[in-house]
Amino acid sequence: MMKLFYAPHTCSLASHIALENAGAEYTTVRIDFAADEQRKPQYLAVNPKGRVPALATGNGILTETPAILAFIAQSFPQARLAPLDQPFAFSQVQSFNSYLCATLHVAHAHRMRGYRWADDAAAIEAMQRKVPESVASCYDLIERKMLRGPWVMGEMYTICDPYLFTMAQWLEQDGVDPPRFPKVIDHRSRMSERPEVRKAIAEQLA
Amino acid sequence: MMKLFYAPHTCSLASHIALENAGAEYTTVRIDFAADEQRKPQYLAVNPKGRVPALATGNGILTETPAILAFIAQSFPQARLAPLDQPFAFSQVQSFNSYLCATLHVAHAHRMRGYRWADDAAAIEAMQRKVPESVASCYDLIERKMLRGPWVMGEMYTICDPYLFTMAQWLEQDGVDPPRFPKVIDHRSRMSERPEVRKAIAEQLA
Repeated sequence: MMKLFYAPHTCSLASHIALENAGAEYTTVRIDFAADEQRKPQYLAVNPKGRVPALATGNGILTETPAILAFIAQSFPQARLAPLDQPFAFSQVQSFNSYLCATLHVAHAHRMRGYRWADDAAAIEAMQRKVPESVASCYDLIERKMLRGPWVMGEMYTICDPYLFTMAQWLEQDGVDPPRFPKVIDHRSRMSERPEVRKAIAEQLA
Repeated sequence: MMKLFYAPHTCSLASHIALENAGAEYTTVRIDFAADEQRKPQYLAVNPKGRVPALATGNGILTETPAILAFIAQSFPQARLAPLDQPFAFSQVQSFNSYLCATLHVAHAHRMRGYRWADDAAAIEAMQRKVPESVASCYDLIERKMLRGPWVMGEMYTICDPYLFTMAQWLEQDGVDPPRFPKVIDHRSRMSERPEVRKAIAEQLA
């Protein structure tokens, strides 16, 4: 049985929702960021990066959200969470998820995790000030060019959807004005009504 | 025929090498960053992100290095550039490439592209000062935990190898001390001797 290591209010929600979408049998382990549990030896033995999510599978541990999402889609083909037999369409899924992890999530991370990229307090504050603009510019591209509707990839719900939904949880806290991005907000709203999404959120926040 | 949009000294080299590894027929288009060509309407019509690489395929345009690499591997299965029929092993390839795009490349980008995440000059300088440390911490993890040897995934050469090689081009300029990472440097050295790598580099720097 798979085991998901997660922390509330992190991108691990995307993998959690995808496990629900897949109908997977899995257990979860909450990592307490307030207690810095992600940097303690017990967790570093699971994931030496000291981050969440990590997914323990029958074959070993997997990290990085795009890889975990693709693995869930490939492990539960009957759930049809990605166009597995169409290399170009599958690569577009991977492309969208790469953009979220390497550009949108990174822009967002400059609000709370600026210490990763600079040491002095003034620089970290300068990074925080730019987050509303840099995050909004990602959503501008998503709104205009990437989110096809009704789901990210069009008619087919895929592993892109829980990932975008997870990122979009942070819009307001990142200082982005939601009405600027009606398609993203509509997507977030429709996602939030899905029972698998409610179940994953309820467990993470319990 | 595929067409790769690239710029010298960028991560587009990874996709270029992979196309050579695959034995693909392809053409290339150089985007002149010095002339800001990546932000001009003609290129934004190809890639609205204003970045390289972009790969024009028979099905449309693909962006984001991990997605392009996976697409090349899937489109040329006879080249055996990824363990395509083993979902867990394939996901480990994706996981490695996600780490490069979302953590290592991002750490590196704070040296030259700090303006993405802060506006004031002092903050941008503070980011530059931390690059040797943040990039080295990525290589520390790669050296200790991720690079199996002789290739990234072990005995099988995969799409992880040209991507790591491309990132490792920047080690010295990022202020990282190469002798700290003998496996990474040995990998870079062996990669640089491969004819496909030499061919791609020669074209990019011509």
